[in-house]
Amino acid sequence: MAQDHDEVENGFNSSRNDDGHHHHDKKDKNEGEGGKEAEEFSVERAFDGKEVPSWRKQLTIRAFVVSFVLSVLFTFIVMKLNLTTGIIPSLNVSAGLLGFFFVKTWTKFLENSRILRQPFTRQENTVIQTCVVASSGIAFSGGFGSYLLGMSDRIALQSEDTNLGYKNLSLTWIIGFLFVVSFLGLFSVVPLRKVMIIDFKLTYPSGTATAYLINSFHTPEGARLAKKQVRTLGKFFSFSFLWGFFQWFFTAGDNCGFVSFPTFGLKAYEYRFYFDFSAIYVGVGMICPYIINISVLLGGILSWGLMWPLIEKRKGDWYSADLSPTSLQGLQGYKVFISIALILGDGLYNFCKVLSRTLVGLFYQVRTRNASSDLPVAENSSPETAKLSYDDQRRTRLFLKDQIPTWFAISGYVAIAIVSIIVLPHIFHQLKCYHVLVIYLFAPTLAFCNAYGCGLTDWSLASTYGKLAIFMIGAWAGSSHGGVLAGLAACGVMMNIVSTASDLTQDFKTGYLTLASPRSMFVSQVIGTAIGCIVSPCVFWLFYKAFDDLGVPGSEYAAPFAMVYRSMAKLGVEGFSALPKNCLLLCYVHFGAAIVINLIRDSIRKEWARFIPLPMAMAIPFYLGPYFAIDMCVGSLLLFIWEKIDKAKADAFGPAVASGLICGDGIWTLPSSILALAKVQPPICMKFLSRRTNARVDKFLGS
Amino acid sequence: MAQDHDEVENGFNSSRNDDGHHHHDKKDKNEGEGGKEAEEFSVERAFDGKEVPSWRKQLTIRAFVVSFVLSVLFTFIVMKLNLTTGIIPSLNVSAGLLGFFFVKTWTKFLENSRILRQPFTRQENTVIQTCVVASSGIAFSGGFGSYLLGMSDRIALQSEDTNLGYKNLSLTWIIGFLFVVSFLGLFSVVPLRKVMIIDFKLTYPSGTATAYLINSFHTPEGARLAKKQVRTLGKFFSFSFLWGFFQWFFTAGDNCGFVSFPTFGLKAYEYRFYFDFSAIYVGVGMICPYIINISVLLGGILSWGLMWPLIEKRKGDWYSADLSPTSLQGLQGYKVFISIALILGDGLYNFCKVLSRTLVGLFYQVRTRNASSDLPVAENSSPETAKLSYDDQRRTRLFLKDQIPTWFAISGYVAIAIVSIIVLPHIFHQLKCYHVLVIYLFAPTLAFCNAYGCGLTDWSLASTYGKLAIFMIGAWAGSSHGGVLAGLAACGVMMNIVSTASDLTQDFKTGYLTLASPRSMFVSQVIGTAIGCIVSPCVFWLFYKAFDDLGVPGSEYAAPFAMVYRSMAKLGVEGFSALPKNCLLLCYVHFGAAIVINLIRDSIRKEWARFIPLPMAMAIPFYLGPYFAIDMCVGSLLLFIWEKIDKAKADAFGPAVASGLICGDGIWTLPSSILALAKVQPPICMKFLSRRTNARVDKFLGS
Repeated sequence: MAQDHDEVENGFNSSRNDDGHHHHDKKDKNEGEGGKEAEEFSVERAFDGKEVPSWRKQLTIRAFVVSFVLSVLFTFIVMKLNLTTGIIPSLNVSAGLLGFFFVKTWTKFLENSRILRQPFTRQENTVIQTCVVASSGIAFSGGFGSYLLGMSDRIALQSEDTNLGYKNLSLTWIIGFLFVVSFLGLFSVVPLRKVMIIDFKLTYPSGTATAYLINSFHTPEGARLAKKQVRTLGKFFSFSFLWGFFQWFFTAGDNCGFVSFPTFGLKAYEYRFYFDFSAIYVGVGMICPYIINISVLLGGILSWGLMWPLIEKRKGDWYSADLSPTSLQGLQGYKVFISIALILGDGLYNFCKVLSRTLVGLFYQVRTRNASSDLPVAENSSPETAKLSYDDQRRTRLFLKDQIPTWFAISGYVAIAIVSIIVLPHIFHQLKCYHVLVIYLFAPTLAFCNAYGCGLTDWSLASTYGKLAIFMIGAWAGSSHGGVLAGLAACGVMMNIVSTASDLTQDFKTGYLTLASPRSMFVSQVIGTAIGCIVSPCVFWLFYKAFDDLGVPGSEYAAPFAMVYRSMAKLGVEGFSALPKNCLLLCYVHFGAAIVINLIRDSIRKEWARFIPLPMAMAIPFYLGPYFAIDMCVGSLLLFIWEKIDKAKADAFGPAVASGLICGDGIWTLPSSILALAKVQPPICMKFLSRRTNARVDKFLGS
Repeated sequence: MAQDHDEVENGFNSSRNDDGHHHHDKKDKNEGEGGKEAEEFSVERAFDGKEVPSWRKQLTIRAFVVSFVLSVLFTFIVMKLNLTTGIIPSLNVSAGLLGFFFVKTWTKFLENSRILRQPFTRQENTVIQTCVVASSGIAFSGGFGSYLLGMSDRIALQSEDTNLGYKNLSLTWIIGFLFVVSFLGLFSVVPLRKVMIIDFKLTYPSGTATAYLINSFHTPEGARLAKKQVRTLGKFFSFSFLWGFFQWFFTAGDNCGFVSFPTFGLKAYEYRFYFDFSAIYVGVGMICPYIINISVLLGGILSWGLMWPLIEKRKGDWYSADLSPTSLQGLQGYKVFISIALILGDGLYNFCKVLSRTLVGLFYQVRTRNASSDLPVAENSSPETAKLSYDDQRRTRLFLKDQIPTWFAISGYVAIAIVSIIVLPHIFHQLKCYHVLVIYLFAPTLAFCNAYGCGLTDWSLASTYGKLAIFMIGAWAGSSHGGVLAGLAACGVMMNIVSTASDLTQDFKTGYLTLASPRSMFVSQVIGTAIGCIVSPCVFWLFYKAFDDLGVPGSEYAAPFAMVYRSMAKLGVEGFSALPKNCLLLCYVHFGAAIVINLIRDSIRKEWARFIPLPMAMAIPFYLGPYFAIDMCVGSLLLFIWEKIDKAKADAFGPAVASGLICGDGIWTLPSSILALAKVQPPICMKFLSRRTNARVDKFLGS
């Protein structure tokens, strides 16, 4: 395994020399005639004068002190969101920005006192960002608003099913539980980082945006274009932030404000076709490739425009008419399970593809023992290396410099899994050790699926995989053997793995773009996760003890997902038979379709293949609705028009604009959460009523 | 007088030769080095190859046939608006555009049949536009939704004051009334056209926008920049049109949609401080000079931000607390009368200034008999002629080529006034011939004021002057002698004069910019007015007979202003004593302030004078509220930023963008009116509720 690692490095080194030579050629030529043009597109040239510290030097003590402070702050925010609506936005950007401001102020202060030993680098900034995201990620994947709270006596008493089992929450076992399940995800994706970041070139819009932000902060003086880009980023950042601020004033109440703007009419809004004016997804759309945006929109049209309305017409036939709209035995069931089927189909196909290629490559390697050949996957892309830009070359070189040996990842995974298999059944008596073993056998596949999907679309589907675990393990354990609690616990195990996996891969991307070492990313993520495993339960405990009405519908901390998860678990123990009519059939069809689409994509010529949509991207609006697809397509359209008008400018400033939009809206979540914590409510509700309802309301207000 | 006319022409001819020579110099130089730059800013160079037809040839039969068809269409729209809300937007742009499409289609058809004798010119297009605006203007100034309907038995019966007098409406006397009062305004401003268009260089945003539109349609092939401008105009036209269309969907009900968007919060909205997202006023703000926009905003802040809230605090002291909010004895009285005082102060100052200069000039001219000297007003500006651009030179030359003799204007005015003084007391027995005489003595001053104010700000304040007449004549006649009816009739006389005066001056501006002769504008306006005097009453009669509930509050055709005007007249017969406390004092203060500000403006140096606000512009938001001032300032700010970024581009494309915004929104009124006529109501109401009200509404809708 160590050899494998060395081979990869050797393999790359040989090609790196070629690249390096080529690069010098190019640079010489640039300084002659077309110098300006090439320089304008390179971020890394601006950093040429700056040394990249070794991975150990990237991990400074001040970075972790700042990370800890920010972690506590972010955990409060995420916990508040968890326990009120359950919708958590990506906080990568906020973490990057605040990390910069904290350390920059610190170093500025030390510089002035002339006792600064080490300058503040972008790699260090990325380390902080990674650590904070990891720790606040636990506040989400810890399920304090969903599965964990769903196990509690409070929720069980409320849904009047204490007979199905409950578990009194306690700070000690929660911390223990988090420690044994939260590190597995990290080890599961470490071996795949090169495949996802370098070979697949996945976008990871949030991670990319954060990297652009961090790069722009640290751009050395004198880089003209970089400065212009920073100004552009700053402009759109301010716009996006102020737009978020402006929107806030109009959101007093449910379904108020721009986020519920029925742009295409109330009927379309009912089927979630609307533009919600969210700057963040417009930015994401600008960063994602066109085909992703088209796929997402196509998925939205297929599901919410076609399938769901058609299935809805079968109401009373395919499923009972008197179910609540959130019941998984009704329409909601089709949505959840069909999207899971698509995701699994695509994820498994891609996993198998990568696995088979890797195995074939290893097989050839062992047989020929040719030290200079790389893995086939990388080999496939190596003819393209010559075409790589200076930025890509430099980033790839540094990304592959500090390796994390695969044997380390696998042995780590196995060791933690063994500890986990022994400890978990002691925490949850309903969860047997063979349940945990099965989860850990499938987990790497699912972790890969989630990291892959997140890279394509910026959506982490951790909770979807968690739901899958609820059903699988719940049905397996059965209601008589405490299947509800077993399912919820399994959900926690699964969510933690897939969520930390996608977080880490996202951070690898950020690290790749900021020249931070994968090793320092990994260590930072481990430390962040450890911080999260302690801080998150403590913050939750504060909320849990302070608010007696936590989880009660209609109260301030209603935590709606706690009840939803418990209900799902209750459904799950009855097995697939509880699913509505034809749902399983449709799932099989979509699972198959995902594989067939991928097969077509891989078998036809490349110029046609780029028009084939991606099932993974299509699946996400199946569940959530196409509104965010519309945002993304708007971003995509804007970029397309910009490229038509001025290709050079769009290429140079497009990412800055997109990052500005994402960052501004991202940072706005911080003050908005603080406003919510301070119980400052927005003053106005922008409401959308049908003409008939409006007439009724006017009459009511008039009287 | 004929001599005066000739002198002016001679005087100009001599300077024209100079200009012509200078122009050739410039052109020669342009073709050398800096040719592109100068060409880029000239509209008229693009038309250099096109002959301008004589004024008689500009008046074609086909133009008046198209005008008649469009007049009927527009009269329907205006009448509908009159009788529903009473708010009439400017229709100049729609008239210009539709005129173009009609005649262009016609000429295209004839061209294909090879029987076209005369090509379609932009002057002919302007003639159509002028004629249609004149005729549909009568639908507004005819007072079918205000003073005329306010006289009727229907409204008198409803307000239970038939004892104060009423007059049964009949088609014959309405047509007669309109014919004797509608032509006076035209003759009153004809002598002042040069002062307003050339010396004062008033903007007339709507007129300018229409001219840009017409010019862009007729730009000959090959003019590169003009084509670019047309594309820009087209883009913003489409945007503005689509934006208007989009907004429409959210306006089901009162206070719904973007026009009631409390951008700065509900408290600010209450005092009409909000951005109403109207593309038309953003465009107007881009066309108006910065000082106008600042003045309008300043006026809005002074009145709605300071004075009205302060006066409101005196409620119960200065005026009775239990008055309706629209009562002129309450706060509304201060708003109406203080703004009138400001407008009168500014208007009178400027009228006196022009008059005194003209008289001084005439005096010198008679004494020296120097045939080559021009009027002093023109002389003052003649040193600047050398600095004039090619466009301005060419436009000024053509504008001054076809003169309308002043003796013709004055004798026309006197003749119609005599007919009117004899006829009007026969129609309204309550209106005595000396009332009419007094109105006609003051009317030219007020017509000038309105045309001047409209040129500055695009607002025609015809109805404000009409209200003044209600009070003046109403108080003079007294309630015992049918003062209510006399006041309303006087309002009609006044409104028709000032409204047609501002319309004609606006058209002179459009004509100036499209090289249409003032004579053809005048003739077209006369013909249009005649069409309007017949078509408007007929269309009104249709509505009046078809809908029995016309004027009934809450019905489809509520015509709110009919009752308002009648109420004002009832108040007016009681004289100024009926005004609230200190109102008259405040009026005097503002009247004086307007004169003082103008004096300061004219006495200090020019570089400082441009920072002194204009009282006329300040007065308009006093009554209407500052929301449109905010729109205009947004437009102004956008242009300012654009100029900072790229001055050349902003100068070249700014007017096109502004015209596009104005035209698109203007044209949208046509389909929106048709939708209203077809009783197609918008489906959604975008409502703005305070948090507290929203909670109540949610509860109401939930139950």
